[in-house]
Amino acid sequence: MKVGIVGATGYGGLELIRFLHNHPAVEHIDLFTSTEEGVLFSSKYGHLVTMADWPLQKIDYDALAKLDVVFTSTPSGVTSELLPPLIGKGPRLIDLSGDFRLKDPTSYEQWYGKKAAPLEIIQQSVYGLTEWNAQNVKNASLIANPGCYPTAVLLSLLPLVKAQLIDSNYLIIDAKSGISGAGNKPSQTTHFSEVNENFSIYKTNRHQHIPEIEQAISMFAGVDTAITFNTHLVPMTRGILSTAYAPLMPGITEQQLVACLQATYEHHPFVRVVTDVNSLATNRVKGSNYCDMFVKVDSRTNRATIVAVIDNLVKGAAGQAIQNMNVQFDLPQTTGLDIVPLFI
Amino acid sequence: MKVGIVGATGYGGLELIRFLHNHPAVEHIDLFTSTEEGVLFSSKYGHLVTMADWPLQKIDYDALAKLDVVFTSTPSGVTSELLPPLIGKGPRLIDLSGDFRLKDPTSYEQWYGKKAAPLEIIQQSVYGLTEWNAQNVKNASLIANPGCYPTAVLLSLLPLVKAQLIDSNYLIIDAKSGISGAGNKPSQTTHFSEVNENFSIYKTNRHQHIPEIEQAISMFAGVDTAITFNTHLVPMTRGILSTAYAPLMPGITEQQLVACLQATYEHHPFVRVVTDVNSLATNRVKGSNYCDMFVKVDSRTNRATIVAVIDNLVKGAAGQAIQNMNVQFDLPQTTGLDIVPLFI
Amino acid sequence: MKVGIVGATGYGGLELIRFLHNHPAVEHIDLFTSTEEGVLFSSKYGHLVTMADWPLQKIDYDALAKLDVVFTSTPSGVTSELLPPLIGKGPRLIDLSGDFRLKDPTSYEQWYGKKAAPLEIIQQSVYGLTEWNAQNVKNASLIANPGCYPTAVLLSLLPLVKAQLIDSNYLIIDAKSGISGAGNKPSQTTHFSEVNENFSIYKTNRHQHIPEIEQAISMFAGVDTAITFNTHLVPMTRGILSTAYAPLMPGITEQQLVACLQATYEHHPFVRVVTDVNSLATNRVKGSNYCDMFVKVDSRTNRATIVAVIDNLVKGAAGQAIQNMNVQFDLPQTTGLDIVPLFI
Amino acid sequence: MKVGIVGATGYGGLELIRFLHNHPAVEHIDLFTSTEEGVLFSSKYGHLVTMADWPLQKIDYDALAKLDVVFTSTPSGVTSELLPPLIGKGPRLIDLSGDFRLKDPTSYEQWYGKKAAPLEIIQQSVYGLTEWNAQNVKNASLIANPGCYPTAVLLSLLPLVKAQLIDSNYLIIDAKSGISGAGNKPSQTTHFSEVNENFSIYKTNRHQHIPEIEQAISMFAGVDTAITFNTHLVPMTRGILSTAYAPLMPGITEQQLVACLQATYEHHPFVRVVTDVNSLATNRVKGSNYCDMFVKVDSRTNRATIVAVIDNLVKGAAGQAIQNMNVQFDLPQTTGLDIVPLFI
Repeated sequence: MKVGIVGATGYGGLELIRFLHNHPAVEHIDLFTSTEEGVLFSSKYGHLVTMADWPLQKIDYDALAKLDVVFTSTPSGVTSELLPPLIGKGPRLIDLSGDFRLKDPTSYEQWYGKKAAPLEIIQQSVYGLTEWNAQNVKNASLIANPGCYPTAVLLSLLPLVKAQLIDSNYLIIDAKSGISGAGNKPSQTTHFSEVNENFSIYKTNRHQHIPEIEQAISMFAGVDTAITFNTHLVPMTRGILSTAYAPLMPGITEQQLVACLQATYEHHPFVRVVTDVNSLATNRVKGSNYCDMFVKVDSRTNRATIVAVIDNLVKGAAGQAIQNMNVQFDLPQTTGLDIVPLFI
Repeated sequence: MKVGIVGATGYGGLELIRFLHNHPAVEHIDLFTSTEEGVLFSSKYGHLVTMADWPLQKIDYDALAKLDVVFTSTPSGVTSELLPPLIGKGPRLIDLSGDFRLKDPTSYEQWYGKKAAPLEIIQQSVYGLTEWNAQNVKNASLIANPGCYPTAVLLSLLPLVKAQLIDSNYLIIDAKSGISGAGNKPSQTTHFSEVNENFSIYKTNRHQHIPEIEQAISMFAGVDTAITFNTHLVPMTRGILSTAYAPLMPGITEQQLVACLQATYEHHPFVRVVTDVNSLATNRVKGSNYCDMFVKVDSRTNRATIVAVIDNLVKGAAGQAIQNMNVQFDLPQTTGLDIVPLFI
Repeated sequence: MKVGIVGATGYGGLELIRFLHNHPAVEHIDLFTSTEEGVLFSSKYGHLVTMADWPLQKIDYDALAKLDVVFTSTPSGVTSELLPPLIGKGPRLIDLSGDFRLKDPTSYEQWYGKKAAPLEIIQQSVYGLTEWNAQNVKNASLIANPGCYPTAVLLSLLPLVKAQLIDSNYLIIDAKSGISGAGNKPSQTTHFSEVNENFSIYKTNRHQHIPEIEQAISMFAGVDTAITFNTHLVPMTRGILSTAYAPLMPGITEQQLVACLQATYEHHPFVRVVTDVNSLATNRVKGSNYCDMFVKVDSRTNRATIVAVIDNLVKGAAGQAIQNMNVQFDLPQTTGLDIVPLFI
Repeated sequence: MKVGIVGATGYGGLELIRFLHNHPAVEHIDLFTSTEEGVLFSSKYGHLVTMADWPLQKIDYDALAKLDVVFTSTPSGVTSELLPPLIGKGPRLIDLSGDFRLKDPTSYEQWYGKKAAPLEIIQQSVYGLTEWNAQNVKNASLIANPGCYPTAVLLSLLPLVKAQLIDSNYLIIDAKSGISGAGNKPSQTTHFSEVNENFSIYKTNRHQHIPEIEQAISMFAGVDTAITFNTHLVPMTRGILSTAYAPLMPGITEQQLVACLQATYEHHPFVRVVTDVNSLATNRVKGSNYCDMFVKVDSRTNRATIVAVIDNLVKGAAGQAIQNMNVQFDLPQTTGLDIVPLFI
């Protein structure tokens, strides 16, 4: 397979390269840029010296059209203009931005504050939450790869909502992310001295992943609901932990919740249901494509706490993108992704 | 004033010394230990060389009885045995452990897994949440200094619950703490390589601060409720951020919530109501006795998000203890505590 | 005393405010800016709400001239143009930039790559290494406050070089600093995700503190020498540790080195000579004006290792600046600076 | 190949598993323990659930003898007693401890403070600095895998010392390591709250890697010298950076130093000579088996600064061990180790 990455200099792009380097079916990687044509990629990222001593190429649709897969890791608002000419031209397109996730352009424009992609393209895009949408992913020409927060939230909540074990009218989701989610552009909110040794909340009730989560709950669990969703910044580079709260439906037990999660993911290699809370932590999935999850019922309040962890750059971005590529090319989902988490 | 600290080698003790060193009314500090009599304190804590080159003294009730104030910063289960002989003997007693906080010994024994203090002593102890209990603090012979999490949670929720602006039947509290809350004893859960770059949840629904929060809501807001409360470990040393969620009562607006908090704390120097979420972060209170708080209503779900930050070692422990001492001795509450947060 | 700070929004400025807030002789602080006139300072720095709710003032020489002390915490290259009109006009001037430290304008222009300040002003400035230059500091109208690295290096090396206990022809200095030394402007080299969990060397043999250190060794120890000096970035916010290496002069012992340091600093409250290496660490001085130092001889090679730690923002900047102000106004050097290091 | 790991629960063991999991020639891994027989390995290390759900086995020499390779990752002082019965019994033995590195038992006992291994075994062990000793590694029955610091120091210094480009009589080595080098046993010096945001020096002139470095300089460069070597703790988990200083030999230039390093490692895939200091940092090699190095001459002092970075757990331990295994089994050195560094 010949693979191209547009927007390789972002962290999503770096992680794609990290995994594609060891992907047995990938024979060639081209890197495309809108602004730095000819620059040696490894001169920008010293860790890739000897591994990616490749010049960045100008974005060229003829060159892109000859590839088998094109990943776009460009910012939201850019991809929606960049990709349309390529659709249906040959390569499978896997977009890591938020531009093709929301089916409703009005919602996109409201939450992202940007112009939506063309409606017909939005409509044909397939939401790439692999464990829940592999059949559609397989044949999609354009995959909208899920956001980092939605991946952790949806994988842990969808089974319980769909099985009506928890009350989906009262979903409270308190999410926490490492700083790499903010990308590689320096800013005051990523400035070491002010982020280090600091924990903060941001975008209260305004995160653009809210409509993405609600849409997916509707799509995969058949339930329309408005969620409460807040996001926090953790002074670490990688990792997301999502803590969700919901009332139990009458008569439901913790055992049923656990069994539901276990049954749902029995044959899914990247989801692990943990039964000891001490085994759940972001470092247990660091660097890997795993999503670990845990559920606990508080008998005093009859509410469930549902927790999930992922590496935001892997299962929350590049890893899931490659997992989708594997599905499309009839490879085992774990191809190129079967690595041990770093832990420390 | 002559002051004694029992259990000075813990982090609570170190912070007491940090503030008492600059307290204008404190003329002398004695440090007591059960195990290291005669050891020079600064030989254990190099940062105190030239500032606390004092030998640790054996715990001696005659010596303790001659002091004006005794702070106990010993572990829960220890203080309950240590303090009773001193009660009513002269010094004001301010206990930083959890031993005298819960009025119900059965509840203590259930949540702490230890034997409760004698009932008559529990009953005369005063819960030292300064902003809400200064009148009782003033005359108390034994103060149960609040826990770190309860301080952040209660200061931000009590006004809203008491004024019936939010539905106290559905309080979800998602709290996050720096690692120093675990104290100075090394363990696998405080081992740098496994805590650093890691975010985790612990004690799901089982934290001993749950009954403390519920008791105080009953005591100060007159409402009996069962809360959902979970705690997380943040890879940083200091700081707590509590994110609470509650449905609004019918017809209530965000403006009313903000106004309620502002009115409640108008004359309280250590509470700051923040109206821009970007101004709320644990580093804004680092090293100081401030509690900053923020409230936001999500009009889509008609729920409030109530956030508070403190330095767990200061307002959540030693700082509030000294604030209580100030109240007892008719000093301005800010005496010795009026310092600028470190921020970075 | 009425005090002004020009460049208050940098980290040096923030630390000046932190200490001046508790300085008993300071009755008023004015903050000046070249670009943000009228902006409420606390709206930029949330940790200062209620403590510094002051509008930033336009730089106005008439207003500045009425103050007792003016601190300039502006970047190198800016102060040299800003300060000259104020010299001799009334206020004592204490400059935290590098603009007035080097007596040789050619050297300044070579190492800083900027135009030097006027020669007559450079000549009358006094290098504010308090422990070594208090007599001159006392009467100076313009103080060039030392750089962060030079403070740690010089305090630990000067006594030994001056007493000819070590061979000053072969000084190797390997210095390490927290990230706050890079200031508050975001850049790739202060971007959390790329600094966190990373240790690097920078500016090999090219740091502008090299000529400052050599000049001070000449000035205070009477020795002209060329040093080897390298700097590293530590993934933490505050702190500098300098490790210096030098051959012993013939017949000299470790005991003589220790005694020399102890005798030199016997009456200097902010220098502590440590004899157990385990008591030496940047967190022992965090947030404080201390410089702790340690010396060890390797009998296998007959070389000394001389180590010093400071908080780069305090003894390495704002703290020493206030220490100099205290000297100028005949106050005890510890006035407003006598606080316990944070340690954790 | 059938592989065994004794001491798998340490960080060296965890990293061996991480790489062996993806090693194409390894078909089976057995884990051995002296104390936790029967415990499921993944129950101790949650990140390995589904990947290493294997029971720990009792140390059994018959079982060990049937393996192709046995890695020992047990503490120094333990391996020297554990391994002798296995020598010559079948499996290649690769020891990650310090027990078989020093050829002189007296030196071992002096620096380690423990009883040395039997002399005849020390003598037949081969020092596994792969790039310098592959011929001997190939046929060794017992490999003493190098220490973490020596690997970084030796790879960068040996070419220059051997070629007599620098003066080996005056080698000053200032090394810095992440905390994982201290292993997985909690202690005060690895306690998060006291290590985080702290930089310190330890074991001044007393580190047990000193004789190992000197021995290897003698062995591979033919030079007997006494070095000055100090070690520091960096508040991060992984990574070593070594900064070495040496006078140039007369007439030598920076270009010659660079050329020497480049020529030495031209055909060695894991060593990268960096010519821009900004490309040198521990995160450029994080998680990988690379050693990146950089050399710079200061024309003012005619001294060279020689810098090297490795991941202490990979090239400094498990990665180099597997590299040695590859050499022994005639596999390309990169087999199972050809992964992209994490960078962030």
